[in-house]
Amino acid sequence: MSATPSAPAPLRLDPPYLLFLGDVDEAGFAKTAFGLRDWAGDRCTGEYSLPGATVTTGLPMMTPAEAVKVGARSLVIGVANPGGIIPPHWIDALAEALEAGLDIASGMHVRLADDPRLSELAQRHGRRLVDIRTPPPGIPVANGRKRSGKRLLTVGTDCALGKKYTALAIARALAGRGIAADFRATGQTGIMVAGSGIPIDSVVADFIAGAAELLSPDAPQDHWDVIEGQGSLFHPSYSGVSLGLLHGSQPDVIVLCHQPGRTHTLGHAGYRLPSIEEVVEMALKLGARTNPAIRCAGVALNTSALTEDTATVLMGAERDRLGLPVADPIRGGPEFDALIDECLRE
Amino acid sequence: MSATPSAPAPLRLDPPYLLFLGDVDEAGFAKTAFGLRDWAGDRCTGEYSLPGATVTTGLPMMTPAEAVKVGARSLVIGVANPGGIIPPHWIDALAEALEAGLDIASGMHVRLADDPRLSELAQRHGRRLVDIRTPPPGIPVANGRKRSGKRLLTVGTDCALGKKYTALAIARALAGRGIAADFRATGQTGIMVAGSGIPIDSVVADFIAGAAELLSPDAPQDHWDVIEGQGSLFHPSYSGVSLGLLHGSQPDVIVLCHQPGRTHTLGHAGYRLPSIEEVVEMALKLGARTNPAIRCAGVALNTSALTEDTATVLMGAERDRLGLPVADPIRGGPEFDALIDECLRE
Repeated sequence: MSATPSAPAPLRLDPPYLLFLGDVDEAGFAKTAFGLRDWAGDRCTGEYSLPGATVTTGLPMMTPAEAVKVGARSLVIGVANPGGIIPPHWIDALAEALEAGLDIASGMHVRLADDPRLSELAQRHGRRLVDIRTPPPGIPVANGRKRSGKRLLTVGTDCALGKKYTALAIARALAGRGIAADFRATGQTGIMVAGSGIPIDSVVADFIAGAAELLSPDAPQDHWDVIEGQGSLFHPSYSGVSLGLLHGSQPDVIVLCHQPGRTHTLGHAGYRLPSIEEVVEMALKLGARTNPAIRCAGVALNTSALTEDTATVLMGAERDRLGLPVADPIRGGPEFDALIDECLRE
Repeated sequence: MSATPSAPAPLRLDPPYLLFLGDVDEAGFAKTAFGLRDWAGDRCTGEYSLPGATVTTGLPMMTPAEAVKVGARSLVIGVANPGGIIPPHWIDALAEALEAGLDIASGMHVRLADDPRLSELAQRHGRRLVDIRTPPPGIPVANGRKRSGKRLLTVGTDCALGKKYTALAIARALAGRGIAADFRATGQTGIMVAGSGIPIDSVVADFIAGAAELLSPDAPQDHWDVIEGQGSLFHPSYSGVSLGLLHGSQPDVIVLCHQPGRTHTLGHAGYRLPSIEEVVEMALKLGARTNPAIRCAGVALNTSALTEDTATVLMGAERDRLGLPVADPIRGGPEFDALIDECLRE
């Protein structure tokens, strides 16, 4: 129970990667593939999908055998469906990858090693099955002790709208200003990008906040941990993960992430999306329990579906309405600089 | 993903029980033993503890061999320590129970079956190791769909102050009025008392709300599920469990549980206990996400440390202050009748 927190162990996953898309037909479910393309593009060599797939990363399409020829060492399952299952009709393609000489990495809840055919093939060919979503052993119950160093957590109005990208962009921007900062990954894609982390949605429920404490251990006072948020406090399925992560992370600063135009919780048509203000207010109220100094530094809008002009107008209007910096971290620009300034304000 | 909710499978645990207390020296950690004594006393035959134990249930002390002689069939670990571990110095006593002919039931996070000595002995003697805290397989992600029937959830200002007792007492009171009601257990003790349930703190984080949905399936419109609360929305370690349970339970009614005199979160001296009003306000605000009709029917005070006169005065003062029924469900009386009336108010 009194395990001393230390940063999570690095992940062993050999690049370059072949991104596997299965038969995915909704871009939202391919966020692992897109995340790796966008944040670890130098480690991605191509994509492989099954008939029926309508989503593409734009990387060259190749079979496992072709990928091995151009140097690929791992096939990474780039799809994260609800529930985290590996459909039976994917197994042939995964077996093909092992036979071609690739390791396989998966961020699904279901473990690759639990599939008898894949397990047998991996052993026979000397390949590794890397289950990213298996948490490390020995996660303690949270102790609630205030840790040294600075922490930022991205929180969202929903799932899958930019909390990981925002955290990655903020960590990069802080590093660009010469500030010591670590991106702390809490989901499968983030862990693959960062090379370490804890899949917070996969730990046993009693240990969510404990895992968050372990993920961002004591650090020098001027060091920033930029923690990838998960789910939403208003999500009917995943709110428990979000609250445990908030309490365990003890953030000094939150950045609210939202996608303009999203009106309902993804996959839950009966659930109206909460407003930005509702989520900020709730996150600050709840977060104050473990860090009374918590504050919101601004709003990150995912404007990928908008033109640059529209995005600029919208960000300005939202900034005036909310009285907070509003930026699209992927677009960057002076708006994002202002958001980073506000994060760093003492 | 689309598993049809159905009530959880019954637990197989053969009575009568010998309650094992280990070397526990704080009554709060022996709540499983006390819960069984108080709510399943007809199934408890005695207690067994190690040198150093200072807590007793008041049941006759007996060794496993003596317990078998008076008919005992299972040794139940009656201690729930933080983190849910089985200390190595308990193993001899547990081995003794298996050799004497008892099954063993445990509500610890650590599984009995994972101890090689116990596993080997159980096999050799044909005894069962029952891990109550192992959740059922196939728990779905919550879908957020409104279910039929009525639901009541007990919520608390902290852990271990009466949420289970309150739910059990309310379920009993409803049945006493001829109303169809089920106590729905979410923790090891409740599951042992009820004979079924889901250990909500032990499911994988992404599935907390899904487990809560599974626990209280669609029911007739006039049927009440009385759901055992867990943790607290303000608990620095366990808040995620509490929020997932709240969202998945979709309660129509909450009953706030508190222990007068408790000033800090148990085991977390740095954390001031939230007020009753703070917890009610937060639970209603969060709970409205999955059931906009949620309301608080009253407050259950654990006055076990007070005299009857003091308790009566306090309950009256709190009722006047809060404008809600305030009762001690274990004392019962007109205060508790008024609380039940308010639960049932249309």
